[in-house]
Amino acid sequence: MTTAVAAGGVTTPLGFKAAGVSAGIKVNGGSDLALIVSETAATAAAVFTTNRAQAAPVVVSREHIERAGGLARAIVVNSGCANACTGDEGVSVAQEMTAETARLLGCSAEQVLVASTGVIGVALPIDKIRSGLPAALRALAVDQGSAAARAIMTTDPFPKEASARATIAGREIVVGGMAKGSGMIEPMMATMLAFVTTDASVPRLLLDRALRDVVNDTFNAITVDGECSTNDCVFLLANGASGVQIDDGSYAPFVAALRTVCRELALGIVRGGEGATKLVAVTVTGAATADQARKAAKAIANSPLVKTAIHGGDPNWGRLIAVAGRAGVAFELNRASVAIGPTVLFKDGQPYDENAPRAAEYLSGKDIAVTVHLGVGSEESTVWTCDLSAEYVRINADYRT
Amino acid sequence: MTTAVAAGGVTTPLGFKAAGVSAGIKVNGGSDLALIVSETAATAAAVFTTNRAQAAPVVVSREHIERAGGLARAIVVNSGCANACTGDEGVSVAQEMTAETARLLGCSAEQVLVASTGVIGVALPIDKIRSGLPAALRALAVDQGSAAARAIMTTDPFPKEASARATIAGREIVVGGMAKGSGMIEPMMATMLAFVTTDASVPRLLLDRALRDVVNDTFNAITVDGECSTNDCVFLLANGASGVQIDDGSYAPFVAALRTVCRELALGIVRGGEGATKLVAVTVTGAATADQARKAAKAIANSPLVKTAIHGGDPNWGRLIAVAGRAGVAFELNRASVAIGPTVLFKDGQPYDENAPRAAEYLSGKDIAVTVHLGVGSEESTVWTCDLSAEYVRINADYRT
Repeated sequence: MTTAVAAGGVTTPLGFKAAGVSAGIKVNGGSDLALIVSETAATAAAVFTTNRAQAAPVVVSREHIERAGGLARAIVVNSGCANACTGDEGVSVAQEMTAETARLLGCSAEQVLVASTGVIGVALPIDKIRSGLPAALRALAVDQGSAAARAIMTTDPFPKEASARATIAGREIVVGGMAKGSGMIEPMMATMLAFVTTDASVPRLLLDRALRDVVNDTFNAITVDGECSTNDCVFLLANGASGVQIDDGSYAPFVAALRTVCRELALGIVRGGEGATKLVAVTVTGAATADQARKAAKAIANSPLVKTAIHGGDPNWGRLIAVAGRAGVAFELNRASVAIGPTVLFKDGQPYDENAPRAAEYLSGKDIAVTVHLGVGSEESTVWTCDLSAEYVRINADYRT
Repeated sequence: MTTAVAAGGVTTPLGFKAAGVSAGIKVNGGSDLALIVSETAATAAAVFTTNRAQAAPVVVSREHIERAGGLARAIVVNSGCANACTGDEGVSVAQEMTAETARLLGCSAEQVLVASTGVIGVALPIDKIRSGLPAALRALAVDQGSAAARAIMTTDPFPKEASARATIAGREIVVGGMAKGSGMIEPMMATMLAFVTTDASVPRLLLDRALRDVVNDTFNAITVDGECSTNDCVFLLANGASGVQIDDGSYAPFVAALRTVCRELALGIVRGGEGATKLVAVTVTGAATADQARKAAKAIANSPLVKTAIHGGDPNWGRLIAVAGRAGVAFELNRASVAIGPTVLFKDGQPYDENAPRAAEYLSGKDIAVTVHLGVGSEESTVWTCDLSAEYVRINADYRT
């Protein structure tokens, strides 16, 4: 049994502390250095951006998680500078961030993971990190999860935190998390970071499998503008402080709690997308394969014509059909259908345009669902996105200065 | 030797007449019915949308070109209604358009090609086409090419016409063409149509090959918003009225003239894209294969972050690198480079941000070139696009009523 906890975050599970402080990296001030620390070495799993232009912290964290045999004590994160496209120097800086954190905590540098978000192509001032870290360490506390969640924001309109509980053989485990989305008001920021903690004890292979399973239909099922950053990463730490061991038998309730947290964070990222005014769930049914369902749903979710129509409250089902037709998946026009909310506008090759006013009324809401049936098979997939507003353009067309 | 002719169009080659009249299909009036007629049956080649949701006129024209053995006398086109997603009834209407045109011209229906552009999912009123066609026939004239070019517009900001001449063994042949782009001020209109004529005599297989060769690096190398319509098509008619026969020996100058016309029309479509203020040539070099170069160039050209940055005059090279990295092609960050116009901003893994002001100055122009080197091989490709403005969102978010 899993329940979402509104108020929770990375320090809701037992044995985790966090901090968020200002190290002076952000030009306009504000907190920009976050620490998440487990009392004991935690089992760690991670997924990284598939972008081939990988930022220095991605390179370093990937190495560390391998070298440390999947154990981690801490995650150190800065906002305000992505440390991406910064060459060998950038890698040294990311290594130095982990080494300095490790020195203060008294663990090995390999047991520290690092992430950065902010401007690409600008050197990260390691002296500011070095002088900010002692303050972060002093601030570490169980009640500082929200401070950490705020310190990783760039121009996100709100911090994103979530937690969930599961009862396993009568004992409780907790999963907590925090995330940032793509703010972009200062251009060149487009990073999705998420950090998830649990007090369950989970063997490394099982933790890896759980994270991959859940990321696929949460963080990998959202899109704001189809972009994939140089810095995207999701870290998951399991420190076992609850004393509850997860095995194949208790995998399902653990994954359900993990999925609840990741989905809540993922939807928070979409709701906080640049210029977003609506959350849109795009469901594709009747696909030949699950991959084709996902591919069509992503194509629809990234279509500027679909996103602008939804922004304008226009039940423009022809655009949904046109994108499904060009998505590179099996599609049968004469067996296809489109529904906006509960209202069918096209079915078996025939339009039902008389239903358009009802669909337009539905589109005036904030939480929108659209469904496209491809008319071929029985597989389906849901992807979440936001609408495309003139505000998105204004945000992203601003010059960096 | 090929020269672009500014004033020419589909009736510049010998033996073609055209007309553009109002048949009352467009709700707000204006000409909406175009005819292009060759004095004699012309060899015909065509390329159609790859969208699996194909509009009725696409289905009918594809059939006709096959049944008539690659011969055509006329092209009939309406704007104001796409006759797409209209079921079997829509196919009957498209057939009726060709039959009525054929009856008036005294040829077989199979020798008439048909195209439509406008709102999806709305029935095309065949009675209006039927009563408009006699007027179109009466208006047919050598000097009515521009009238035809205007009659196929939906919300294009300007008509698109071009022609070019080639001298072959001392004799001249002419290629002329007209096109419409994606207007979209009335939503659900996103069709690219182009009609090209020549007075050269070209065997069917050679004409097919020429059209495919040229379309690949003209119409298929442009993108406004990554969308592909249900109605897209390019028709090419060669009527031989010049008396000049094209064979393998004279293929090159013929194709050069054809490319000049198609490129001019294609760039006109991009310049007239919804909300466009800049024409952007995206060149990708250093790719492992030509396909990968094209794939990366399309990804960059369709990136909303790249398009908004260019709109805002922001030399945001990090976005270009980030898209190249996520484009699904071979990419080496440490050997990659980015130039905006002639200004290098990133090279061999190192940023040259001190050049940003010069690049920003360049981006204040209207014709922009950006180059991304993938650092892998030696293949390259160029794709043309426009910037993404708040006006695009306003145009496409309007409700259809």
